Amino acid sequence: MAFLKNTWYVAAWSDELTSQPLARTFLDEPVVLFRTDQGVGCALRDRCGHRFAKLSVGKITGSAIECRYHGLRFDGNGTCIGNPHGPINQAGRIRSYVVHEAHRAAWIWMGDSGLADPNLIPDLSFLGKAPESAFSRGYIRGRGNYELFTDNILDLSHADFLHPTTLGGNFTRTRAKVTEDGDRVAIHWNIVGEPPSPFAANRLPPGTLSADSWTEVEWSAPAVMVLRNGVVAAGEARSNGKSSHNVHIMTPETAGSTHYFYAATRNYDVGDLQLNARIAQMRDRIFATEDEPMIAGQQTSMGDANFWDLKPALMRIDEGPVRARRILARLIAAEHGNTSDDASLPPRDSDA
Amino acid sequence: MAFLKNTWYVAAWSDELTSQPLARTFLDEPVVLFRTDQGVGCALRDRCGHRFAKLSVGKITGSAIECRYHGLRFDGNGTCIGNPHGPINQAGRIRSYVVHEAHRAAWIWMGDSGLADPNLIPDLSFLGKAPESAFSRGYIRGRGNYELFTDNILDLSHADFLHPTTLGGNFTRTRAKVTEDGDRVAIHWNIVGEPPSPFAANRLPPGTLSADSWTEVEWSAPAVMVLRNGVVAAGEARSNGKSSHNVHIMTPETAGSTHYFYAATRNYDVGDLQLNARIAQMRDRIFATEDEPMIAGQQTSMGDANFWDLKPALMRIDEGPVRARRILARLIAAEHGNTSDDASLPPRDSDA
Amino acid sequence: MAFLKNTWYVAAWSDELTSQPLARTFLDEPVVLFRTDQGVGCALRDRCGHRFAKLSVGKITGSAIECRYHGLRFDGNGTCIGNPHGPINQAGRIRSYVVHEAHRAAWIWMGDSGLADPNLIPDLSFLGKAPESAFSRGYIRGRGNYELFTDNILDLSHADFLHPTTLGGNFTRTRAKVTEDGDRVAIHWNIVGEPPSPFAANRLPPGTLSADSWTEVEWSAPAVMVLRNGVVAAGEARSNGKSSHNVHIMTPETAGSTHYFYAATRNYDVGDLQLNARIAQMRDRIFATEDEPMIAGQQTSMGDANFWDLKPALMRIDEGPVRARRILARLIAAEHGNTSDDASLPPRDSDA
Repeated sequence: MAFLKNTWYVAAWSDELTSQPLARTFLDEPVVLFRTDQGVGCALRDRCGHRFAKLSVGKITGSAIECRYHGLRFDGNGTCIGNPHGPINQAGRIRSYVVHEAHRAAWIWMGDSGLADPNLIPDLSFLGKAPESAFSRGYIRGRGNYELFTDNILDLSHADFLHPTTLGGNFTRTRAKVTEDGDRVAIHWNIVGEPPSPFAANRLPPGTLSADSWTEVEWSAPAVMVLRNGVVAAGEARSNGKSSHNVHIMTPETAGSTHYFYAATRNYDVGDLQLNARIAQMRDRIFATEDEPMIAGQQTSMGDANFWDLKPALMRIDEGPVRARRILARLIAAEHGNTSDDASLPPRDSDA
Repeated sequence: MAFLKNTWYVAAWSDELTSQPLARTFLDEPVVLFRTDQGVGCALRDRCGHRFAKLSVGKITGSAIECRYHGLRFDGNGTCIGNPHGPINQAGRIRSYVVHEAHRAAWIWMGDSGLADPNLIPDLSFLGKAPESAFSRGYIRGRGNYELFTDNILDLSHADFLHPTTLGGNFTRTRAKVTEDGDRVAIHWNIVGEPPSPFAANRLPPGTLSADSWTEVEWSAPAVMVLRNGVVAAGEARSNGKSSHNVHIMTPETAGSTHYFYAATRNYDVGDLQLNARIAQMRDRIFATEDEPMIAGQQTSMGDANFWDLKPALMRIDEGPVRARRILARLIAAEHGNTSDDASLPPRDSDA
Repeated sequence: MAFLKNTWYVAAWSDELTSQPLARTFLDEPVVLFRTDQGVGCALRDRCGHRFAKLSVGKITGSAIECRYHGLRFDGNGTCIGNPHGPINQAGRIRSYVVHEAHRAAWIWMGDSGLADPNLIPDLSFLGKAPESAFSRGYIRGRGNYELFTDNILDLSHADFLHPTTLGGNFTRTRAKVTEDGDRVAIHWNIVGEPPSPFAANRLPPGTLSADSWTEVEWSAPAVMVLRNGVVAAGEARSNGKSSHNVHIMTPETAGSTHYFYAATRNYDVGDLQLNARIAQMRDRIFATEDEPMIAGQQTSMGDANFWDLKPALMRIDEGPVRARRILARLIAAEHGNTSDDASLPPRDSDA
């Protein structure tokens, strides 16, 4: 499976990088993540160049990671800077990856290091600005291709069926508006005068039977999604709305598994730590017990087949996901020097 | 592996079909089984045509199964009869399978629906007629090819070695008589004046040291076996015998795994619920802890190899199994349009 | 993967061979090991010739193993000596392997039986001579290729990093001397006036800050290693040293897994059963929780790749392992009739 290589992926939440090495596979490549004593986040191929031991079982000493098997030390560039057994031999140099920390996350560039421009990292500065009492983040390893996890966020109509007692309720009756701008796709649901979802009802005065709500998801390649949603009692000014501002970010582990990073902030009750914990707990449970198993089932059903080869019966609700899939396929093809006729590009005649 | 497709397989016991969908794979195809609110047993490919979610995690609403991911509804023919998101699009139609219920079981036809004639279902009406207190049934998923499970029933001499303290004891000393009639094979053991097996001894007056017993297995393709056995004290009239009348039915899940359905009825103590439970419990334990692991071991030993390619050292006791294997191989070859030279046909010179 | 076939491998510790069959796979071949009532250790292919049941779930009766499925009996040569169902048919003869017991172990010859000369078994008679109170042995199944387990013993510098609080401490500062003699490789560490390792310190008078120690590993193909080590307070006569005399023996299970047999004897406190148990317990813990996981990680990192194709950055400490790998590659190539140009031979220019 071809992945987009020259792009930023979230490797971890920043506070996951510590002096304890963390092993994660990205785009089929085993990587070890760690933070030096100078606070620098680093990523190396998780394989010592000497005898192929896993560096991730080693330890951090100063600015280096030390292999637990024979004590070789490598800095964050993969350069051997210590060999207790003799002269330093750069034949064992380790592949390193550029890491840049921003917006509470550590981003990794799996492709050509020379192209790794931090300015290309999406602006998620709202995450960094949120107070701790109005911020929560999570991670799950998902047993499905990352594009299936993306589809899940770009078509929120699923919430009415998969999360009927919590997040769902009124997406289906409202047609989403999809817009494409360069390499970005945005999907808007503007829901007027509908019973609020159980989750949104908590933000409204008790007994509110009709509400106006809005949800917007903005996708950028490869799989970064910003989601804003808000609600007011029907007819009230939206500027009074209680809203949340979230991210859903997918990083491919393998063709059939995904690192799913998510986070939430909100503009209401921002000092309420208990509410903050309740929201996080509900969301963690929903993602882990409802979304992830559903997508894992899709992946099992699809096996190794290409999504388009299976001829999905697409509908209007698939417009957002399909547009994002097309952009991503085009970017991957361009990276591989193909401009057309790529087998993995969705056919034009399957338009939603 | 080639399976016989145009034939009836048991998919489930009838009472396993409820408004709770049941996922089972037959002949390598994932299937969802359910019962509509009209009581109709249905079987569909377990994969939504929209985004390939597993229908088996959905719910039954009226005569339809509703996909839990986006709410599409399909009737028992696989026709989409409800789309909450827009017009109904039959591009997402689901493959359906003919289901027919008879003899307490739901039978499925995995091949050409036009050929699915309920009259071809074997007559197991004795199962339906048995009172609950003289009927028990079970199911195990077996980790071996279905023909290995068939062999196990067609050569009961194994009971003397694998079940010496329960079912076995005197098959080995008696030569089985094998008869072939069209596409059926019958194997008879007529055991005269032998110590009864521990299991048969329970049906005889205490202290009976010598008994006459008879066991007959009748096989029909692909893997339905009816087993009758009875016992009397040596020399007594067989018409006074206490006998049981059972089925052993194998449905291929994959080339290396089997759905094994079994049931028992009897003509003695037919009102004794405790005896009924004791018999069922003993049988369940024996099948799960003695037969299934033995056959799983055979399968591990054989790996992906063709049975005949491994050159089994066949003996007289294999006559029944070999005749059944030959008939089945001939039927599968015929279904595929081969009349000879099929590599999977047993060689004639390996006659038992 | 090519294994050396015409050689002795340890199949089990002798006391593991009992009247209870033992299933183990060697060189990808499933084998059943057992001891007859005459005390003879036997090894057969673990697959009945009749219907491929696992003989290892059968039972030993006299000099034979009886298949639990249909009761066929085979002697230690794989000859069928009992068939309860009719005449004996040698079509079902089982492949047997020569077993020879020596030095508390049962050795198996997986290649041509005619070449199985017991005189080729390495002389490990010190194991047989050790009193029970100064002998302990162990076994682990290791999730890695046997050559990785061999490398681990031939380069003990790893102990300073992987076992710093027990066995390690002073290998790294001392250059090992490697000698090659025919098909044998010996590695010597002669450590003068260094702080003793925590393990060695226990053999010295309390408070000893400086010690002389020596460790010698002698490897012979395919993977038998004898390890001697001793220690004295710095400057004392070595003849007063407390020393241990050990074996590390690897038998390939598959290309990616190993039967690792190890044993220890010592020349001090030879009657101290508690010390004996403490040493064994520490060693078992270290091998199972430190060495085995490290090597399993190497194997995961390497996948199916050939060791040399991955271009390990070898150093001086790899001299012993590399010499042993070269000899073994040469012996395997010779067994296959190759004298040069074998892809699996290490390149000469990768000399340590």
